[in-house]
Amino acid sequence: MSLAGLRVMGIDPGLTRCGLSVVQAGRGRSVLPVAVGIVRTPATAELPERLKRLSAGVNQWMDDYRPDVVAVERVFERGNVSTVIHTAHASGVLVLAAAERGIPVHMYTPSEVKKAISGNGRADKKQMTTMITRILGLTEPPKPADAADALALAVCHCWRAPLLARTAALLNSEGATS
Amino acid sequence: MSLAGLRVMGIDPGLTRCGLSVVQAGRGRSVLPVAVGIVRTPATAELPERLKRLSAGVNQWMDDYRPDVVAVERVFERGNVSTVIHTAHASGVLVLAAAERGIPVHMYTPSEVKKAISGNGRADKKQMTTMITRILGLTEPPKPADAADALALAVCHCWRAPLLARTAALLNSEGATS
Repeated sequence: MSLAGLRVMGIDPGLTRCGLSVVQAGRGRSVLPVAVGIVRTPATAELPERLKRLSAGVNQWMDDYRPDVVAVERVFERGNVSTVIHTAHASGVLVLAAAERGIPVHMYTPSEVKKAISGNGRADKKQMTTMITRILGLTEPPKPADAADALALAVCHCWRAPLLARTAALLNSEGATS
Repeated sequence: MSLAGLRVMGIDPGLTRCGLSVVQAGRGRSVLPVAVGIVRTPATAELPERLKRLSAGVNQWMDDYRPDVVAVERVFERGNVSTVIHTAHASGVLVLAAAERGIPVHMYTPSEVKKAISGNGRADKKQMTTMITRILGLTEPPKPADAADALALAVCHCWRAPLLARTAALLNSEGATS
């Protein structure tokens, strides 16, 4: 099964800075970069205003790049709880934007992404940036630097998707014959 | 300043069960019940589908009851982190629904609500239900039982709003003369 041409949007959820990327799957394991950037919302604004701006920002990206599928970092416990709650608010709004357009959403933990990209679930930021720069054939590390995670999510999905598709096909055929 | 006629929607965020209420402020401290209910999403569905259904549910309520203001329970650390993250995803979507309609959102912690309604920030569920039943002049406790929190949030806002308005006016007048 070939995924060539599949457009994947990677989303690294955040309320102050939300990383967004778009890549296109090529032949085999090749992945082409399409776009990378950050949607910011001001920390001085109230939560409703911030969520509205974030939603408008991601919807604009979806209008501009028409992704076939979205890969989002799964929010889990780390650091302080107040940050986790803010990120989870943001994530809810981002996942909703995809769901309302009927775009499939896949969620990956940071360690799943790290393992897929570098072979090491505990790779540090520098290792990840080096790998992403190489995989996408960039002449220099992606900018802004903190958008590299959004690219890594999208590449992770490109590489995991064929496996997910084969697993789903296998489960379906087992279901059909049992 | 009179709030009489103000329509307040109370939202107790949740992904599996989200409590919703609408009340109307009367004269003085009187508050009239308008509606109370629950929006459910199936635990077997994926997160994107659940958030889409929750958003559709709260938007339907907003279409039906046209609230002037929304009072939402603030998500904070309690119980297990996975539940907190789910609730925060839901809350993001609920707050967004209000923000996109330009409806002001006020957030209250559970203890602020308990204190406003019963005078005791640690009141238990039974005390709260008794108070809400009495305040709203109901002949029996509100049903479903877990929607009582959504009513309490809305009543809390009716009683806190005049104070918030006076504080805002005071701050504005100080700003104007300084």
